[in-house]
Amino acid sequence: MQMNPNKDTRLCMSLSGRPGNFGLRFHNHLYEQLGLNFYYKAFASQDLDGAVRGIRALGIRGCGVSMPFKEACIALVDELDASAAAIQSINTIVNSNGHLKAYNTDYIAVAQLLVSHAVPKDSTFALRGSGGMAKAVASALRDGGYKNGLIVARNERAGRALADSLGYRWQAELTDERPQMLINVTPVGMDGGPEAGQLAFAPEAIEAADTVFDVVAIPSETPLIVRARAEGKRVITGLEVIAIQALEQFVLYTGVRPNEAQFAAAVNFARS
Amino acid sequence: MQMNPNKDTRLCMSLSGRPGNFGLRFHNHLYEQLGLNFYYKAFASQDLDGAVRGIRALGIRGCGVSMPFKEACIALVDELDASAAAIQSINTIVNSNGHLKAYNTDYIAVAQLLVSHAVPKDSTFALRGSGGMAKAVASALRDGGYKNGLIVARNERAGRALADSLGYRWQAELTDERPQMLINVTPVGMDGGPEAGQLAFAPEAIEAADTVFDVVAIPSETPLIVRARAEGKRVITGLEVIAIQALEQFVLYTGVRPNEAQFAAAVNFARS
Repeated sequence: MQMNPNKDTRLCMSLSGRPGNFGLRFHNHLYEQLGLNFYYKAFASQDLDGAVRGIRALGIRGCGVSMPFKEACIALVDELDASAAAIQSINTIVNSNGHLKAYNTDYIAVAQLLVSHAVPKDSTFALRGSGGMAKAVASALRDGGYKNGLIVARNERAGRALADSLGYRWQAELTDERPQMLINVTPVGMDGGPEAGQLAFAPEAIEAADTVFDVVAIPSETPLIVRARAEGKRVITGLEVIAIQALEQFVLYTGVRPNEAQFAAAVNFARS
Repeated sequence: MQMNPNKDTRLCMSLSGRPGNFGLRFHNHLYEQLGLNFYYKAFASQDLDGAVRGIRALGIRGCGVSMPFKEACIALVDELDASAAAIQSINTIVNSNGHLKAYNTDYIAVAQLLVSHAVPKDSTFALRGSGGMAKAVASALRDGGYKNGLIVARNERAGRALADSLGYRWQAELTDERPQMLINVTPVGMDGGPEAGQLAFAPEAIEAADTVFDVVAIPSETPLIVRARAEGKRVITGLEVIAIQALEQFVLYTGVRPNEAQFAAAVNFARS
């Protein structure tokens, strides 16, 4: 049971344009289960500089950083972990006595998932997207030894830049290639977005693939994932990404790693 | 029962050099009892400017301000309530969509207590102290119509300035005057201080008085209060001051006024 708040309670927080409930429910549930004297609060802000000043002045222990702050935040921290330095995009700040070190636990989560799902390293892949999250996913692929990749992005400048920086090819559309792994890092299929209910890859490409990976988490059963499951493909979902990235934040903030059962229960609680 | 935290939970906080537990226990207990989606966190800080930047950037609803920030904070807010303007000392900030208005609920609490304890307005009084809290108490006396007052303070400059600003006399010591009300606004009798266990006024002065008022809250049964009770005097304690000032902060932050029973239960919980 969660202890009553007292003057020693430590605060962790998230900072985003539009906060959701997943992270705060995940962290607060685990604090309670593990008897840790922490509290997690989700903040919306338009003033990133003032928010980071506040993190320093108030001794806030950790901060999850979401859109639209993942790049702008870099100039405001003191140190970048390797997970954030290579891609110049952060999603986590850890405050150790006023020293702010930034991490990218999305990158860490994707790297873990490629291993835990045993995706063969010689798989060819196509990754749709060219934003901050696409950088994190593509970097994890590159660093995981996946050499034969194609970045698919209508935005030629961003797509080419991402592909060139990692040694991959770029195309505006997938056309008739049939990669072994398909990865969606766009909002296609996301609830509430303009392409909700749509399929991020053509049915023929899904049929030809072995592995389908969608970072969309709301819902995590996107049309792409539903179809891939029905065809018996190896699937990796956005829920796995947000859950593992939150777990790694939790470990960074508290120094405590929950066991598998505690982690699974927190994910179930956070989703509900 | 307290609702689970979610993205709409509002944060209130306190800012001080050395936070205690009373305020956070008082506020969090009432949030739970009244089903309000708020959370209260006590922060220590050495960076007042950064902390106030954070309050604005993160949309923190309210902030209790303690030593040593009560005067320095004035320059950082947008508006002073009458309770703070006259004494140029604040203990409460209310953030309404980025507009910070500051109050002094110590002043408000003392003014209420003089009325609720029916202290006659023609009482003569001696007030020991010349700091920020002494200003709040003396101003409440002056505004309450108590005209015949003596400020007792070893610090002549501060003592004279306070006395002159309110139309009272100043003396370094009480000597042989026998005022009807004795008010201690120094740390004499406070646990952990250099004058713990000591009596803030001489026994002869206590014996001659009708009313004894001590703002020391830890313990609220100071040697002065214990002795005054034993002699059947009208007593006003520091616990009443911190409880009512916290209640008025609660009303300012939430817009909800707890009933008497809820207030009493919250005070009991906060003390324990």
